[in-house]
Amino acid sequence: MPDRAAVRESRTTTRVRYPETDRMGVAHHTHHFTWFELGRTELMREMGCPYGELEDTRGVLFPVIEAGARFVAPARYDEELTITTRLVEVTGVTVRFEYDVARAETHEAVSRGFTVHASVKPDGRPTRLPADLRARLARGGR
Amino acid sequence: MPDRAAVRESRTTTRVRYPETDRMGVAHHTHHFTWFELGRTELMREMGCPYGELEDTRGVLFPVIEAGARFVAPARYDEELTITTRLVEVTGVTVRFEYDVARAETHEAVSRGFTVHASVKPDGRPTRLPADLRARLARGGR
Amino acid sequence: MPDRAAVRESRTTTRVRYPETDRMGVAHHTHHFTWFELGRTELMREMGCPYGELEDTRGVLFPVIEAGARFVAPARYDEELTITTRLVEVTGVTVRFEYDVARAETHEAVSRGFTVHASVKPDGRPTRLPADLRARLARGGR
Amino acid sequence: MPDRAAVRESRTTTRVRYPETDRMGVAHHTHHFTWFELGRTELMREMGCPYGELEDTRGVLFPVIEAGARFVAPARYDEELTITTRLVEVTGVTVRFEYDVARAETHEAVSRGFTVHASVKPDGRPTRLPADLRARLARGGR
Repeated sequence: MPDRAAVRESRTTTRVRYPETDRMGVAHHTHHFTWFELGRTELMREMGCPYGELEDTRGVLFPVIEAGARFVAPARYDEELTITTRLVEVTGVTVRFEYDVARAETHEAVSRGFTVHASVKPDGRPTRLPADLRARLARGGR
Repeated sequence: MPDRAAVRESRTTTRVRYPETDRMGVAHHTHHFTWFELGRTELMREMGCPYGELEDTRGVLFPVIEAGARFVAPARYDEELTITTRLVEVTGVTVRFEYDVARAETHEAVSRGFTVHASVKPDGRPTRLPADLRARLARGGR
Repeated sequence: MPDRAAVRESRTTTRVRYPETDRMGVAHHTHHFTWFELGRTELMREMGCPYGELEDTRGVLFPVIEAGARFVAPARYDEELTITTRLVEVTGVTVRFEYDVARAETHEAVSRGFTVHASVKPDGRPTRLPADLRARLARGGR
Repeated sequence: MPDRAAVRESRTTTRVRYPETDRMGVAHHTHHFTWFELGRTELMREMGCPYGELEDTRGVLFPVIEAGARFVAPARYDEELTITTRLVEVTGVTVRFEYDVARAETHEAVSRGFTVHASVKPDGRPTRLPADLRARLARGGR
């Protein structure tokens, strides 16, 4: 049974890096998934379970098993972007995040997306989320 | 009205590069989208309309407006991958590609995905696909 | 004749991103050059000549023609890094920057490097630095 | 004492990928270091010691401790490049490679560079190259 996660939202900012731009003059679409990951990293930190610690001390990894995005408007070099991240669903073995990227100055939408993660052991085998971690995620942190 | 594109399929290979791996020891999910792009580049070349030429000589750009993927199995450093690319739909302003990435040696599935592209001018404004190009794409090349 | 540039130093921070790590568990060396570029972007902004504006409004590009680095200690996922950037030399057609990357918390050195840039037109032909821009850079900004 | 390595040279090719280009319309300089790594991977394979196997079965890692390059001419989207890699020096704890990247069609030079690698254990501590491996590298393979 999935738990609809408590609405826990995190906001962080980044600037478009020069090597993220391509010959169209705008950020290549692959980098939006990297920005989603920045947002996810901050949300996990704010929820009291920094992702690096999960890997290092709990031996739980969350590889992406599904991802999708719509690219609404181009992001240009050096533009400041706001990444809004929400943890929206927690099950025994998966978690789902959703993302909005917008121009920091104008709030204009740049992209929207989601990722689904599976809980696995360092050797790659699926594993159930530790109960305390699942509970913490489902209630949106502390 | 969308044209269901003629089944035109292209196959190319690549190896997982060291910087494409992450601390989990496998290729980071963002690079699968780059591999999809390698497949698309080859398919366009085989169809007689190399993508770089479209941009340079026709002034038509195809930015990705939507993308999605399922990551089925990890890809490891130096593994050879087969990328199968299909052009599946052409409308007046969009084209849709689908992709399968598999281990070259065992044919085991690694990831599956799609991209949707809009036809735009270099200034970013939407534009209809030139009729000859649309016809060529819809009939799967030459 | 080179002008030894006024000592203008800029400091900025970044965190190691997950996709910047590789299967060794530390940031891949190529990303240090991206961090150098972050430092350079901030220094140019602080000097009153944001690099994007130079390209867009002055038609002056500064591609890297030489780069080098020593990688002293590994940088790990999510670690905060301090990037110190110095503009050290300005000639009629080139500028040289030097960089130090350190752990923000401990000040331990992570890497040191340099880049040399040539002034070119958008078509790639070398061009002399506009006199006012050269003067501004040589005196370290405003 | 360094051994001047036997002249063992490897040649491989790659094409410039779309996301490797930047808003200048040419490949960003950081990607030349990735191409050097492609060349190094092939040379190690040809010498009978694929790099992944060294890491996995011998527990010897070769992180880059120094790197440098001159960028002579731009590389454009979809251009085929030839990467020539030479192992030029082997000491008890380091190896040095040199690289030339050129346009495959015209043989025009694109970039030249080098990397120096230290032999370390998976925990990052320096270690001497296993004697058989050092001997193999010094005589240029089998």
